Amino acid sequence: MSIIEDKLNTLGLELGPAKSSVANYLGCKRAGHLLFVAGRVSELRGEVGTDVTEEAAKTARDTVLAILSIIKKEINDLDLISGVVKIQGFIRSSPDFNNHPNVLDGASDLLVELLGDNGRHARTATGVNQLPFGATLQLDIIMQLK
Amino acid sequence: MSIIEDKLNTLGLELGPAKSSVANYLGCKRAGHLLFVAGRVSELRGEVGTDVTEEAAKTARDTVLAILSIIKKEINDLDLISGVVKIQGFIRSSPDFNNHPNVLDGASDLLVELLGDNGRHARTATGVNQLPFGATLQLDIIMQLK
Amino acid sequence: MSIIEDKLNTLGLELGPAKSSVANYLGCKRAGHLLFVAGRVSELRGEVGTDVTEEAAKTARDTVLAILSIIKKEINDLDLISGVVKIQGFIRSSPDFNNHPNVLDGASDLLVELLGDNGRHARTATGVNQLPFGATLQLDIIMQLK
Repeated sequence: MSIIEDKLNTLGLELGPAKSSVANYLGCKRAGHLLFVAGRVSELRGEVGTDVTEEAAKTARDTVLAILSIIKKEINDLDLISGVVKIQGFIRSSPDFNNHPNVLDGASDLLVELLGDNGRHARTATGVNQLPFGATLQLDIIMQLK
Repeated sequence: MSIIEDKLNTLGLELGPAKSSVANYLGCKRAGHLLFVAGRVSELRGEVGTDVTEEAAKTARDTVLAILSIIKKEINDLDLISGVVKIQGFIRSSPDFNNHPNVLDGASDLLVELLGDNGRHARTATGVNQLPFGATLQLDIIMQLK
Repeated sequence: MSIIEDKLNTLGLELGPAKSSVANYLGCKRAGHLLFVAGRVSELRGEVGTDVTEEAAKTARDTVLAILSIIKKEINDLDLISGVVKIQGFIRSSPDFNNHPNVLDGASDLLVELLGDNGRHARTATGVNQLPFGATLQLDIIMQLK
């Protein structure tokens, strides 16, 4: 078992099954030492600022787990991840909500818990008026591989 | 003629003229083996979910052709493309439209038709409330070069 | 003093202090020769198309200065930048505003002034309905390092 999965166990978390892409694209694609992960929407539906404000950071954390499942399926060993490079987070939110960074912290905190300093990353949080399937958020991650 | 252009001919498609950037930026920029293509808006105008739902996947396909024209102008030979890494698609859509992946399939399907397995890519589909010039969609592609 | 800072002086501009990230993420992260800079929101608040149309290109320029401060803090010497690869600009704008490229020119023009041909880049301009803290725009830059 990989070091990352060991830490997940310690935290009482698990990867769960890797969901397939909803259309004609890959879960992730490697280019050199960079791994570009396809945008993954949250299981949670609804708009932050109106429907689901409290639950949003939690679903960001859960979406990271879903993304790690996909990566594991593709590269087999999560310990090949040498760092988290960048997260682009799109948050479906009402026009008067503007604390998007707080939502993304759910994702960032977990990645740092799992990978330590290598898990620290650059990040962009953006509000949008709609996402695929009415999801609350979408995470788009670039990883660095060994 | 390149293999990609050969396939385009077989499909009855053509690249058309490469449009210039609308402002002070490049059509694409190479960094190592990655080619970052500037976001290209569709010729089609209007909002998906209200004005132009049916035509949206078709204009995604056409926008890929426009992007290939730009790349050809910059690197001369499309066969230098060794893979499609990532597509970020922004789709101008109404708040109640949430089938953005279906729109982007117009782009993804063509890239796989033209490049086979190398054309398969990671992808993110995002709804937004407006795009430059009122365009229906915008595609932002990262290619890998030989 | 670096060549870039020299040019800033000539233009009567200065970097100013590097602001810290607002949450658990880095100001920028290096991966090989690419430097991914975290999305930086403008000091200016308000929506383009209603509140702050005239000032938007100016705040794009100022945001580039803020980003250069962050990069200097991280890599110490701005002359390690060998090129600007890509800008993703998110512009908080009303549904009827569609001249996003004009806003981003404030950023692009300054980077070309400072870095010459190496400052020329690929770019994507996207309208969104809200940004962190109600900011007018957000710039997300990928640099290439020596």
